[in-house]
Amino acid sequence: MNSVILSARDVDFLLHEWLDTDALFERPTFAQHSRETVDAVLELAQAVATEKFAPHARSNDLHEPTFDGTTVSLIPEVGVALKAFADAGFLTAGVPEDRGGGGLPTSIISACLAWFHAANTATSGYALLSMAAANLIRTHGSDAQRTLFAEPLADGRFTGTMALSEPGAGSNLSDLLTRAIPQEDGTHRLFGRKMWISGGDHELADNIVHLVLARTPDAAPGTKGISIFIVPKYLVAEDGSLGERNDIVLAGINHKMGSRGTVNTAPVLGDGAHTPGGAPGAVGHLVGEVGQGLPIMFSMMNEARLGVGIAGTAVGYTGYLKSLAYARERLQGRLLGAPPAGPQVALVEHPDVRRMLLAQKSFVEGALALMLYCSRLLDDAVSLDGRAAEEALALVGLLTPIAKSFPAQWCLEANTLAIQVMGGAGYTRDHDVEQHYRDNRLNAIHEGTHGIQGLDLLGRKVLLDRGRALGLLVARITQTAERATAAGGSGEGYAAKLLAMTARLRDVTTRVAVAGGGAEVLAEATAYLEGSGHLVVAWLWLEQWLAAHGKEGDFYDGKRAATAYFFSRELPKVGLWLDTVAAHDGLTTALDPTVL
Amino acid sequence: MNSVILSARDVDFLLHEWLDTDALFERPTFAQHSRETVDAVLELAQAVATEKFAPHARSNDLHEPTFDGTTVSLIPEVGVALKAFADAGFLTAGVPEDRGGGGLPTSIISACLAWFHAANTATSGYALLSMAAANLIRTHGSDAQRTLFAEPLADGRFTGTMALSEPGAGSNLSDLLTRAIPQEDGTHRLFGRKMWISGGDHELADNIVHLVLARTPDAAPGTKGISIFIVPKYLVAEDGSLGERNDIVLAGINHKMGSRGTVNTAPVLGDGAHTPGGAPGAVGHLVGEVGQGLPIMFSMMNEARLGVGIAGTAVGYTGYLKSLAYARERLQGRLLGAPPAGPQVALVEHPDVRRMLLAQKSFVEGALALMLYCSRLLDDAVSLDGRAAEEALALVGLLTPIAKSFPAQWCLEANTLAIQVMGGAGYTRDHDVEQHYRDNRLNAIHEGTHGIQGLDLLGRKVLLDRGRALGLLVARITQTAERATAAGGSGEGYAAKLLAMTARLRDVTTRVAVAGGGAEVLAEATAYLEGSGHLVVAWLWLEQWLAAHGKEGDFYDGKRAATAYFFSRELPKVGLWLDTVAAHDGLTTALDPTVL
Repeated sequence: MNSVILSARDVDFLLHEWLDTDALFERPTFAQHSRETVDAVLELAQAVATEKFAPHARSNDLHEPTFDGTTVSLIPEVGVALKAFADAGFLTAGVPEDRGGGGLPTSIISACLAWFHAANTATSGYALLSMAAANLIRTHGSDAQRTLFAEPLADGRFTGTMALSEPGAGSNLSDLLTRAIPQEDGTHRLFGRKMWISGGDHELADNIVHLVLARTPDAAPGTKGISIFIVPKYLVAEDGSLGERNDIVLAGINHKMGSRGTVNTAPVLGDGAHTPGGAPGAVGHLVGEVGQGLPIMFSMMNEARLGVGIAGTAVGYTGYLKSLAYARERLQGRLLGAPPAGPQVALVEHPDVRRMLLAQKSFVEGALALMLYCSRLLDDAVSLDGRAAEEALALVGLLTPIAKSFPAQWCLEANTLAIQVMGGAGYTRDHDVEQHYRDNRLNAIHEGTHGIQGLDLLGRKVLLDRGRALGLLVARITQTAERATAAGGSGEGYAAKLLAMTARLRDVTTRVAVAGGGAEVLAEATAYLEGSGHLVVAWLWLEQWLAAHGKEGDFYDGKRAATAYFFSRELPKVGLWLDTVAAHDGLTTALDPTVL
Repeated sequence: MNSVILSARDVDFLLHEWLDTDALFERPTFAQHSRETVDAVLELAQAVATEKFAPHARSNDLHEPTFDGTTVSLIPEVGVALKAFADAGFLTAGVPEDRGGGGLPTSIISACLAWFHAANTATSGYALLSMAAANLIRTHGSDAQRTLFAEPLADGRFTGTMALSEPGAGSNLSDLLTRAIPQEDGTHRLFGRKMWISGGDHELADNIVHLVLARTPDAAPGTKGISIFIVPKYLVAEDGSLGERNDIVLAGINHKMGSRGTVNTAPVLGDGAHTPGGAPGAVGHLVGEVGQGLPIMFSMMNEARLGVGIAGTAVGYTGYLKSLAYARERLQGRLLGAPPAGPQVALVEHPDVRRMLLAQKSFVEGALALMLYCSRLLDDAVSLDGRAAEEALALVGLLTPIAKSFPAQWCLEANTLAIQVMGGAGYTRDHDVEQHYRDNRLNAIHEGTHGIQGLDLLGRKVLLDRGRALGLLVARITQTAERATAAGGSGEGYAAKLLAMTARLRDVTTRVAVAGGGAEVLAEATAYLEGSGHLVVAWLWLEQWLAAHGKEGDFYDGKRAATAYFFSRELPKVGLWLDTVAAHDGLTTALDPTVL
């Protein structure tokens, strides 16, 4: 039953029947690809995910990484899976061809990553960190750094980390304390403590490339004084050979509720455990310019946050499919009015179980549509010209906090509904859904908490942007509504509801912009985020409804049913969130916290 | 920090400033008690819970019960805690004095149990099962059964279980297959398999008293053919001495996501592991009459469901207090517009963190008010006469599905917010909140799932009752609104909102009653449950607001802030749920499940 981890049919529908991925292959950027090649890649992702990642997802949770004071031990299946991932070319499949990659569209890469997260989100974490680290070095590093660090990351010989947080600095990176002292040879020596660093140590690879945020001497306070450094676990000579052990070691590892297979660590730099070259401090190589640490890191942030969104989506999706399979199989009770001696019916026959399954479907398929839509915008940004590319980039910037937070919230809700569908069985470790519920809970916390996403959306992406990207979004929603109205049938009603709620979003946005975006307004940023998120997903459900329009069969009927569910049960919630934003009543800002 | 598990101040406020518990002592039923005696009991509960239950709550999760094929092993602290619970008299504190108990009001007992669940819900489970089993035997058993089983349960020498579910019969008890064959000596011999039986084996007590539902030969199909039996682990002679091992053994234990400390088992009866008296089958003693198994069990169900509500409330409450303590302590970031080099502020200063704390407060204090209100209704039912008693009983019957489900849903929501407030720290096993989130997830599943509660409320307690109890509820809500209007200030606005939503509930209820309460209507029973639940809790927030009215100080300001939160952010949701009920659009009933 656990082999159904994601729907290839849905991925195909979204990429080909909805997003017209074939159109990408007519653009020079992606002209080397075709429907056949990308479908082969998707099939490969499904196969590797199913065969190499899924089988140890439970074991990776039950036998979480251990740390003996020196070494982190993982179950061996993790290394086997990551090697298969690298061998199949996924580490570089999305890297542009002129940088040695496969040049595949991001929308295809995202769909592939959804397969891996659905199969085993914890093991997938290591691969994603390596891809992100390589990408950062490729984009911002020197030629030598690309050769010595990005290439081995890209072929799987090294793995990567993003070492941002510290014990005293999580969401507030401006407070980080790690120091980087410049050396005569052009390197730096780093001293400090990091926290919450995924993949911070293990024996999966020859070397680990830590990307470490730190402060140089006399740096400006706040975020402007932060630089970013490559700190390898083992020093790398100019010929690429590995040298001494660098002075970055673990103070310990964190034991999480879920996503246990991804080791989470507390590294210490320059504490004297090792003295590379006989001197104190962890050797670090500056990436880019001094003081550019945060801009460089944040240039990667949209992709990282979309990655979190894909993870949340996939974990929700797989839980939905597993609870659906159980509900089809398991006989329990009878329908209202049936004779007590008659046969029992499957769980899926009960209306309340159907409600929970439809809700899950509307969340996870809506989220997957959102993730692939954002990915497609990134493809448009690199394959279209001028204003079209700019608009795509502006739109994906606007949508990123939503794409990060909607799955973390609503695909987690799907996971709790999956448990509920299965009842007591779902609450036991005999089934996967309880793990999905624990694993997915992480996604509202890392890579910027839910609250941070709200501030990013309302504060930066809407108010600071003076509503320009929001205008693009509204224009696209309006176009969709026009097409739905023209299609007739229930499309007219959906379009009217969507337009009404969109007008409300514009109106509320204008009101809070006029109000000046002060503390009371930003205090309701989370409500703004959640309201916008539901509106966007409703819009993408109407897009899916249109893509299914006039087509017959169970699959398309399912899309219509989920659209009906989302428009009748979920879209109305937008009004309540927007009411809260419109009121911005100062309930939280004016609160004296001693009364709590 | 973990020592703050519940608020004695809030319990005192609810019992004394709001519910006027002193009035109970003027009634003959409770005349032997006084404010002083019940306050002493509450303090004792706090002390035993804090000293004996809380310290091993984490250990009980990390070192969950194990089963070696014969014996279940628990950590020793569980037995020590349960002995302290029994020694302090809590097993019988709520039993009427004429039945050998302490005769305390249920509202006091519920407050005590909240302390134990807040401290350690898993260990508390064993005590509650014993109390429930003793209560059932006391109410429905013979004199001999009371002496031989209820008394040892009441003094802690035996523990109890409720053995209802089977591998093929969970929510649908009518399908249970366990057989009970009458013997010439008046006993029965039982054969069958049970599932999800909490406390089904362990070495905590001299004996375990299983209350087992089973079918007698030639019994009617469905629920009418079910009887209930006492099946002791060891046979008990007429003089109370323990005899042979009975043939009830474990096929295994279930490994849950949370509430791990309460061993959950799959017992087998009459499989031949033992042959008491040289004959096959587990010896069982019929309680009450043949065919009365379900009515007897359901006579205990309201109390059992209120017990689940208290557990969910307490686990939510303790998570709130722990996240609040962390938010006061932990410095992180700065307020909007503050200079980056300035000092960091505590988490509690951030508006979005306050939002999450206020939401938690509104859920957990609202839920505690609901639990104590229902408990008080039970006290009224036994201490008032005639119509007043009947009304109290009708009202608590109506409110029970809400009291069972609101905490399971919204105090779990509080638990997820507690994690979010604490960020990465909250997601680790270094802090308690992740365990609370796992533990509390059980409460929407056992003792009737969330969906079952909806059907109970809308189908039985409202439609079948022809709205009589609902009318009582509306009358009480109206009285509260009138008092709030008279009080003036924000009370007027709250009263108007509450009355408007109550009118909407009445209107929707009438509409679905007129529609005939068919499948489409009952398909929206969960929406009806959730809408009613939020309305009831809003009402009880206005009750608390009134109890705090005119009083000064942080505590009362906190009540006012939480009332404002619930009325502005939560009460409006009722309208959406009721819209769904009013539409009863047949989305789930008409669905062809193959499209999922």
